[in-house]
Amino acid sequence: MPRLVDHQERRRSIIETTWRLIAEQGIENASMRDIARECGYAAPGILAHYFPNKDALLLASYQLICERTNERIAAGTKGRRGIAALRGLCLEIIPADPLTVVEARVAVSFWQRAQTEDALRAVGRDALLQWRGLMLGFLAEAEYDGECEPLADPDTVADELLNIMMGLHVTSMLDPDAVTGSRQRHLMERILARLSRSGG
Amino acid sequence: MPRLVDHQERRRSIIETTWRLIAEQGIENASMRDIARECGYAAPGILAHYFPNKDALLLASYQLICERTNERIAAGTKGRRGIAALRGLCLEIIPADPLTVVEARVAVSFWQRAQTEDALRAVGRDALLQWRGLMLGFLAEAEYDGECEPLADPDTVADELLNIMMGLHVTSMLDPDAVTGSRQRHLMERILARLSRSGG
Repeated sequence: MPRLVDHQERRRSIIETTWRLIAEQGIENASMRDIARECGYAAPGILAHYFPNKDALLLASYQLICERTNERIAAGTKGRRGIAALRGLCLEIIPADPLTVVEARVAVSFWQRAQTEDALRAVGRDALLQWRGLMLGFLAEAEYDGECEPLADPDTVADELLNIMMGLHVTSMLDPDAVTGSRQRHLMERILARLSRSGG
Repeated sequence: MPRLVDHQERRRSIIETTWRLIAEQGIENASMRDIARECGYAAPGILAHYFPNKDALLLASYQLICERTNERIAAGTKGRRGIAALRGLCLEIIPADPLTVVEARVAVSFWQRAQTEDALRAVGRDALLQWRGLMLGFLAEAEYDGECEPLADPDTVADELLNIMMGLHVTSMLDPDAVTGSRQRHLMERILARLSRSGG
């Protein structure tokens, strides 16, 4: 089915161009016309073969970011369990390297739209639920394996990690010179070390 | 100077209408025309006496939110020090009641714009720096007063609190039914309790 593959490939390529434009100039400034031009389409109407409108393109872009993050988490936690797996998950979500910085810029743009668009909000909420579920599993392993003390309140440990990771999307954007990748990793390592020591 | 007072009052009133519209329908959907109409101005041009354009109005709106948060923090920490003052600060920043939920919705909208607008980003960064400075002072008091063990790394404790509070702006928006005000307060109390017990 070469034509179907081609269609999927082009959708991906359009989405990647969209990410780049959002990261460079902001979601409102990146028009369908700009995106079409950057993709090399002389007529913006060609985009409509792939995405009926900007909202559909943005929804697909956000979904693809979540999928790719989840693929990286799967790779980063493969063959690991407990604290090591938790570390693998956290390091794929925080915006501490050039790829995840672009993803974070796109995420911040989507959060704005998610406030008034249910479909976008559902994608963001589902990603949070998925990460939370993974974290609770890794925490249970850490407890079972004796890597940490019994956890009085694993839900709150997961809340803490999840909110720190979302917060880093914001603070690293507002103050990139101070909230560097290494400072972000230091923060996550400190929390994982405390968890290993005391169970939370 | 009744005219100056009147001018300032009207600016505030326009900003409050802007907040409400942003919270209800999103920052992009709230046009200068809508804002003027909601303020009771028959001609949108009257807004220009107060704000030359939408960017200026948004910048002033974000600044006023930060000022009001800081006024509430000053009231919530007055006569307190150490952990009690830290609690007072945190409870004014997290979006755990109707007023702070509206402020958080506006903040999420501004973060999107702050990615590409230096003046907005500077307002956001300055607020983070101010809160961080206050937190480090309260942590030093808690240590001095013997409320907590000596802090090995107060900067990282402040990072942790600050990022959790920013993260709650995001997660409570994406999943308001789960991330309720009481769950947010529970998370903050748990962290303050751990800090009192172990120093971090």
